[in-house]
This record gives sequence, C-alpha cells and structure tokens, in this order.
Amino acid sequence: MLSVFTGNGKGKTTAALGQAIRALGRGKKIIIFQFIKGAQYPSGEENALKDFKNLKFIKGGKGFVGILGDRLPLSVHKKAAQKTFRNAKKTILSKKYDLVILDEINVALHLKLLSKKEVLNLVKNYPKDIELIFTGRNAPRELCAKADLVTEFKELKHYYHKGVKAKRGREF
Amino acid sequence: MLSVFTGNGKGKTTAALGQAIRALGRGKKIIIFQFIKGAQYPSGEENALKDFKNLKFIKGGKGFVGILGDRLPLSVHKKAAQKTFRNAKKTILSKKYDLVILDEINVALHLKLLSKKEVLNLVKNYPKDIELIFTGRNAPRELCAKADLVTEFKELKHYYHKGVKAKRGREF
Repeated sequence: MLSVFTGNGKGKTTAALGQAIRALGRGKKIIIFQFIKGAQYPSGEENALKDFKNLKFIKGGKGFVGILGDRLPLSVHKKAAQKTFRNAKKTILSKKYDLVILDEINVALHLKLLSKKEVLNLVKNYPKDIELIFTGRNAPRELCAKADLVTEFKELKHYYHKGVKAKRGREF
Repeated sequence: MLSVFTGNGKGKTTAALGQAIRALGRGKKIIIFQFIKGAQYPSGEENALKDFKNLKFIKGGKGFVGILGDRLPLSVHKKAAQKTFRNAKKTILSKKYDLVILDEINVALHLKLLSKKEVLNLVKNYPKDIELIFTGRNAPRELCAKADLVTEFKELKHYYHKGVKAKRGREF
C-alpha cells in the first residue's frame, strides 16, 4: 500500500512519523529513509526514538539543495539521493520491514536527484503487503497516479509569513 | 502559537503525534487530550508512547458520535467533551506543558459537543509561549481565523473508496 503525503503545508513528515509510532505500538518494524535531510542535523524525532529497536532512521541527504546557504555541487546531492534510494529499494524488496517511509523523496524527484523511471519501477514492483509512505512537496503526477492514498497538505496559513522563525522542537 | 490541522484527508492526528515526538526529543513536556476517541479503544500510538514520562495521553471521548453503531445519547458525548475541555483548559493555563494537543476538538466543535464561544475564549487568552495543536475535520472558520497556522489535509485519493478496510497499526 503506497501513501503519498504532498503539498506545501506543514505536517507531512510529522504525519509519517505519527504513522511510524502507531505501527510501532502494534509490534511492526519500521524504517525511515530521509532524502535531502542529512546526518549533520540530528532532529528531535531521532532523539526521541533512538531507543526503539523496531524503528530505524537512515539520514541519506546532504542538507538543503540550492537554497539556504547550500554550496555543494548538485552532483553530490544526486549521488547521496541515489545511494539512499538503492539502499531503500534493497530494504523494501528484502521484506524485513512492515512500514518503509521515504521522507522527502518527492522533493528529490522534483529536483531530479533521482530518476523518476526508477522510482516508478519500484512502485510497480514492491511487495504489496508492505506499507510505503512517500513524503515531500511537489510529488510527481505519475507517482500520485500509482498511489493508493494521496493527501495534499495545503497551507491555508503559516506563521512563517508573519516572520516567525523555525524553532527547535517544532520544525526540527 | 496555535496550529490547526483540518480537512478530510488522512494524517491530521498522526501529524500532531509526530510533532509531539519531535518536541519530546527536545526535552519538552507534552499532553494530548483526545476528544471523541475513548479509552475503550487503546491505540497503537498509546502503546508505543506509554513509557515516556514527558508525554501524557488523556482519552476523553466516548467513541464515534452518531455513526458506526454509536447508541449513546448525545448528552453523554457532550458531557464527556465538556469535561475534557475543562480539564484541557486548566492544564493549558497551568503552563505545566510546552505542547498541548487537542485531538479531534474540531469535530467536537462541529458536532456542537462544545461551545464555540468557550473554545474561542481560551484561544484568545492562553499563554502564547505554549504550543497548541487542534486537529479534526471541519474546523470552524472563526477558529482558523485566530490560528497562527492552518494546514488543510485534503484527500486527493483514499484506499477506503476501493473498499480497503481500516487496519490495526495503520488507522489506529
């Protein structure tokens, strides 16, 4: 079952995290691969969840791409995303996890860090008893077409526009 | 800061849960009051999170209202919602928690289990350094007008419509 959480509103990653917690409480095994987001910034959620044996975080990104002070060549981001995707694909096909979350993969696709064809190919061929959640804004149309559930997180109002800054424990 | 998660799409409660986990990992204290949802159905998330001292669940509902086999008089649902709200209000004003989640309160408002005036009054007068998250579809317009952030969770596609049933570890 593939769920896609997309749109420009706040809540996509935390919605996936909440799903992970719910599954955890039912004895499921969960793995979260994060694209874009890198190990250089440990998040609140990682701190909170580090002692659960049945939940694993893989931070495969190199940070923001082309914005907010990013100085890395695009090739470095691409290489990281592709490595993370290969790892995720292997993990999904191994059937060792009940829920696999590919956080920000939609963004990686939109930025062309990943080949859409390759991702769509996995979506066609993964074991269907596994739950997959793909998050990130700008999910490609072809991906949504293949998904079983798509929620658009639509920003109706955001405190950023009033000049409120991202805050530890709320945004990361 | 008040965030409202509303709309007909999947992910509102789990998005709030994910926010709770993130805050937890930064040493914050969190309390989750659930409207509608009752203690008779322990959820996956409660199982997973029961050992965290800094996170508390209060299930104040009596189950679905007027649907899915509910046979309770509306007055019973009202009484439960009002008690939960009084408890939540006291807790918020005590400033003992950094993040207070009122799960499904939007639904309780829409079903008139709670007085809109009373809830709006709290929204006007709560200590502004506390984070509040209100979830549930059909959030009243006046509430969204007072909020700092509103995300509409819009269902673009849902497997329910293909006849897929709610599943342990995914929906509860």
